[in-house]
Amino acid sequence: MIRKIRHESPGEYLSGLFNITPEFKRFNARNDIFNRAVWDDRVNAKDFFRSYDIANYKPKASKGFDHWDYAFRNASWHLTDQIGERHAREDGKVEGFTNYYTLNAPGSPTKVVIDDPVEATHRIKLAARMFGAGNCGICEVDDRWLYTHTFNRKTGGNPEMDLPKHLKYAILLIIPMDHRLSKTYPTALSGASTGLGYTTGLSCAVSLAQFITNLGFEAVASMNDTALNIPMAIAAGLGEYGRHGLLITPQFGPNIRITKVFTDLPLVADQPIEFGVKTFCEECQLCASACPARAIPSGKPQAEPPSISSLSGITKYTVDADKCFKFWVGMNSDCAICIRVCPYNKDFSKWWHHLALSWSRWRWVRRILLFMEKKLQFGAKLSSASWWAGH
Amino acid sequence: MIRKIRHESPGEYLSGLFNITPEFKRFNARNDIFNRAVWDDRVNAKDFFRSYDIANYKPKASKGFDHWDYAFRNASWHLTDQIGERHAREDGKVEGFTNYYTLNAPGSPTKVVIDDPVEATHRIKLAARMFGAGNCGICEVDDRWLYTHTFNRKTGGNPEMDLPKHLKYAILLIIPMDHRLSKTYPTALSGASTGLGYTTGLSCAVSLAQFITNLGFEAVASMNDTALNIPMAIAAGLGEYGRHGLLITPQFGPNIRITKVFTDLPLVADQPIEFGVKTFCEECQLCASACPARAIPSGKPQAEPPSISSLSGITKYTVDADKCFKFWVGMNSDCAICIRVCPYNKDFSKWWHHLALSWSRWRWVRRILLFMEKKLQFGAKLSSASWWAGH
Repeated sequence: MIRKIRHESPGEYLSGLFNITPEFKRFNARNDIFNRAVWDDRVNAKDFFRSYDIANYKPKASKGFDHWDYAFRNASWHLTDQIGERHAREDGKVEGFTNYYTLNAPGSPTKVVIDDPVEATHRIKLAARMFGAGNCGICEVDDRWLYTHTFNRKTGGNPEMDLPKHLKYAILLIIPMDHRLSKTYPTALSGASTGLGYTTGLSCAVSLAQFITNLGFEAVASMNDTALNIPMAIAAGLGEYGRHGLLITPQFGPNIRITKVFTDLPLVADQPIEFGVKTFCEECQLCASACPARAIPSGKPQAEPPSISSLSGITKYTVDADKCFKFWVGMNSDCAICIRVCPYNKDFSKWWHHLALSWSRWRWVRRILLFMEKKLQFGAKLSSASWWAGH
Repeated sequence: MIRKIRHESPGEYLSGLFNITPEFKRFNARNDIFNRAVWDDRVNAKDFFRSYDIANYKPKASKGFDHWDYAFRNASWHLTDQIGERHAREDGKVEGFTNYYTLNAPGSPTKVVIDDPVEATHRIKLAARMFGAGNCGICEVDDRWLYTHTFNRKTGGNPEMDLPKHLKYAILLIIPMDHRLSKTYPTALSGASTGLGYTTGLSCAVSLAQFITNLGFEAVASMNDTALNIPMAIAAGLGEYGRHGLLITPQFGPNIRITKVFTDLPLVADQPIEFGVKTFCEECQLCASACPARAIPSGKPQAEPPSISSLSGITKYTVDADKCFKFWVGMNSDCAICIRVCPYNKDFSKWWHHLALSWSRWRWVRRILLFMEKKLQFGAKLSSASWWAGH
């Protein structure tokens, strides 16, 4: 049911999948929507960022935005903030968001002998799971997905991205988010699903990078900084690209975060996979029609980027980052209705969801699944009261 | 099968359980075996601590102690070290081990209104699980388990313990360790089970404390510092005391770590539980006979502490900390053979282990279980090669 793409290299596969033209340019992190909040007057997000400091909590009438919800959401970010902003006051680098992580320990002066990269890859993947990854894949680093420049939120500086060039491999880490908590998007409460995902992701990436460093090789732990996670995760065989611009995985649907480790440890790269997402997303419009910001395209993949926050020279479903983030800012929390309503967002600990996923390669099954999805409203929002009442 | 002790207060229950006499004295953390390594010549652990820096890795002939094993073990401690030693260079406080954690954010200036402590308790327990706890219980703080003094490993100072007195409740957090990894004790590899347990425990405790602080109340996150976890966890209804001096839980057996949060948030305390451990440990000698250091008593609970690292004025099975830690030091890694061979150390995702646990209240079942345990060697060591080969 999950088909491995073996007839072309992951790079060629992505070129074809996204119809990448010679006009394609690497992304400058200065244009990232969160970084634009610093320098671009069109993106005004002061209250949004301020709400992550509980001292600025203002009660809201809408449910899912009370003191408990904000207190929980902000606590879920605690460790991510603590580690990520260690040096931010001095040098403006927010690790995990504008720059990669600084590791604690210097690592081993001697390299472990790698006779067998297959065995080494197996061990790295095993360790990744122990450190919190739900799945793990390897790709060779494809320069196209590396940012050209990083952005300094304190100084406004835009220096060249400094990832060492000899780090040939990237280890992509899939961090599952909590299924029930993600059912409460979009609320301040559901922002805890995001925060918890990042906290596990940070822990996983830095621990794995330290492990590799301890083996005597170089490793750089990265979250949303340094490179685009989604194309790299596709290259690493971890999922397919969805209409909502997110990675859809066969194990956790789109309800995930992604972190990564760059390394020079010799590894064996994975191959991209397909399991029917492309055709499903062509027919399904659930995320596009549920998006209150109308930020998700309902038509075919487009070549024109909606704003400077997206890539050009590439044809794909592209979310309008400006519209999307404006909705977040208005709400003082992050939104992922698109994750919630996605038919692939299921609790895959249940066997019947695996069956449905496997059978969804047939058109008539897809039709029935989509019909049920709409009729029975599987993607309906769980109220914050129901969430807090649960266990 | 799990019986709640309702006829007496948790404090009275513990007094009776451990036959606490007027000679009982609170513990001074200066006498903790890890702190004694700083000032007591009888405890020489320099090489042990040094091995947690991979630069000092020395290959060993015994399996489970190679470069991969040490690299993985040390990486599993990465975040715990990073957070715990932030201030250690300046003030000598190793947070999580000699002192409680400093939180990142100041919390809310306004208190959330608690109309219903039952509901508040439910929400705190729900959040604890989201932050990584496998189980969570509440007790009122019982001064007997608080350290009288903390110990500063840098200065050798022994100041009075400074936990604010108005923090009336403790939230005890059970952090499950990985069952398969714990089957490899005692190796450098198995030390990763310990490290991962601590890392999750740290993340859970600081996030939960930040959550409560965000609600406008006070909260102090603590790991092995400040107070004795095991009697508090018994008071909080999380398990029973085993011959190996460890907590045995009905959900994860002894294969756990414990962290905690002290708070003034009004909560509802739990009641101690019993599920047959006391009688089982009377008959079972598996941990005592498997301990290579002969540090676990094979007889009845004793009133005399084996060394200054244990409490006096209390009758219980008491591990000889000096013998135990000497074995660790000789091996350059922590040992938990006692966890591995404990009949309660089972993978409780399997239903039959729950059934066995439930039926173990009958003597003849206990006899059969113990017979099978010895005959079939359920607690046999998993080789490091098998562990690395697994998934």
